Amino acid sequence: MVSTRQWVLAKKPTHLPIFDGPDATFKLVDKHLPELQDGEVLIKVTHLSNDPAQRGWIAPDIKPERLYIAPVEVNDVMTSGGLAEVVESRSKSFKEGDAAVQPAFPILGGRKPQTLHLGTFGLTGLTAYVGLLDVGQITKDDVLVISGAAGATGSMAVQIAKKIIGAKKVVGIAGTDDKCRWVESLGADVCLNYKSSSFADDLIAATPDYATFYFDNVGGEILDVMITRLGRGGRIIACGAIADYNSVRSKTSGLKNWFEIIAMRLSVHGFVVLDFLAKASEATKILLRALEEGKLIVDGGEQVVEAKFEDVPKTWVTLFKGSNTGKLITKIQ
Amino acid sequence: MVSTRQWVLAKKPTHLPIFDGPDATFKLVDKHLPELQDGEVLIKVTHLSNDPAQRGWIAPDIKPERLYIAPVEVNDVMTSGGLAEVVESRSKSFKEGDAAVQPAFPILGGRKPQTLHLGTFGLTGLTAYVGLLDVGQITKDDVLVISGAAGATGSMAVQIAKKIIGAKKVVGIAGTDDKCRWVESLGADVCLNYKSSSFADDLIAATPDYATFYFDNVGGEILDVMITRLGRGGRIIACGAIADYNSVRSKTSGLKNWFEIIAMRLSVHGFVVLDFLAKASEATKILLRALEEGKLIVDGGEQVVEAKFEDVPKTWVTLFKGSNTGKLITKIQ
Repeated sequence: MVSTRQWVLAKKPTHLPIFDGPDATFKLVDKHLPELQDGEVLIKVTHLSNDPAQRGWIAPDIKPERLYIAPVEVNDVMTSGGLAEVVESRSKSFKEGDAAVQPAFPILGGRKPQTLHLGTFGLTGLTAYVGLLDVGQITKDDVLVISGAAGATGSMAVQIAKKIIGAKKVVGIAGTDDKCRWVESLGADVCLNYKSSSFADDLIAATPDYATFYFDNVGGEILDVMITRLGRGGRIIACGAIADYNSVRSKTSGLKNWFEIIAMRLSVHGFVVLDFLAKASEATKILLRALEEGKLIVDGGEQVVEAKFEDVPKTWVTLFKGSNTGKLITKIQ
Repeated sequence: MVSTRQWVLAKKPTHLPIFDGPDATFKLVDKHLPELQDGEVLIKVTHLSNDPAQRGWIAPDIKPERLYIAPVEVNDVMTSGGLAEVVESRSKSFKEGDAAVQPAFPILGGRKPQTLHLGTFGLTGLTAYVGLLDVGQITKDDVLVISGAAGATGSMAVQIAKKIIGAKKVVGIAGTDDKCRWVESLGADVCLNYKSSSFADDLIAATPDYATFYFDNVGGEILDVMITRLGRGGRIIACGAIADYNSVRSKTSGLKNWFEIIAMRLSVHGFVVLDFLAKASEATKILLRALEEGKLIVDGGEQVVEAKFEDVPKTWVTLFKGSNTGKLITKIQ
């Protein structure tokens, strides 16, 4: 009989997830798996994708029907993107040793690290791609600001906007000077550290004629400021809101600058990448071509952390402490 | 020599405008007019349009370039829509006794009250018309919620949505039960009193399958709740934000529910009617036809208050106390 371990949701967190004590967010449980049936495969998870969005799946104050996927409930196994390999197969479609990735995406050729399926050539890259092209319909004439620019989605958005679309100007926003220099190495015209005391002035200096487009990965105060830095008719693509994920909503400071959405005729478009899985092949093709042409940088775009299964939640929570650059991936020891 | 009186901005208000004392918002001044030159006309203002938007023009915390018109600065004459008649003319285009209205709009036939130029057949009616049709592109299939539904713009939006476009369902929101019954008499399927203790439940009951469209005249807390009552792909037309006009922005409670804009793939479109003056003829034609066909009710849609010129600001401020129904117009005694 095969046994496995699972991280199960123990209590929905109102702040940052907690690891110990009676309010611990997750608990580790052992489980015996049923015997494999015809048509089934047994897989072993080798890598996990760490995504800010997962925090929303365990939020205590989001109604199930107001989320874009089924939330994880108490006593459910925590869900995550990941890579796996088939260790036993009773299916005609898979054999032992096959890789298992997100079904919508083409399997990459053998020379590339398979972890790219979790970032550049997975849901993260697709998020940046469809956010800019399908939802935002940006063009060469756009002056973009991209927040969370050193994060997994943001760093892809910077590159797609500047190198593939050729946008007039791309301004990144990130949380350390080191991250900003990396974002600039990806092609951003400039990247601003929002923790700097001169951030407000830096943002004005970087957008002297205002921006036409804001790709928002963070929400919160940076979004509120950006509403005041979009010119007439500017567009906001609402992709993520990590700034508020670890608070219950009623305790957040809230957006104050809504009036400028009216006065400046701004538009806002919320989107969820899961609506665009049919675009995965197209995006992969375009992004692979950009990689071959040297327009897309994947080195430094993922941070693979080796961890014991016991430490999986702790690695994930580092996302919210601003410590990662690019896609954070856990390689399970 | 002709003398006139002017209400001049004395101090930008941080809360409701103040009438007396050292912090008074306006001051009344006498002024001599220069002699009339060739090509000029002298007009006498007979009616003033009272609009919530005017509060934004004198806000202390809005930068001039972030407003849709030039703001009124301290020592400037306060601006307002209005009706006037020509009392002396040295222009070939006007003669004594001619009416003066907003240039973009056709002059109504003689049988109709000229005050309709300020509401139904003026900027107010056009705001509702272009907000629903041009910006919102609503159809018969839409389930709409309209806030400020007993106000000048809202009451027009209710009628256009239900009677002209024939939307599936129109839910109004207003501030008293009496106003709500009036909004229902205009065609709303139901109108909810947001001051009622059961409002949150009433709104859920009125939108059991969520709304597809929210026409927002008020901003603030009602907007925040409405973000949670729009179904997937729902649209918000951001027209006004009266709830916050009498506060400095940093002191408002702020929108907390932004995340649902992402999760529910909502879109938001801010707009300003001044961008759509070219639509004035079309809107007037459609609205006049609707009036003839009995689809549009103008009785009760305007509230004309006679006031001395000394009391003009006091009449205007009643807008923010929820006392008017439909378009509030001051007839100057």
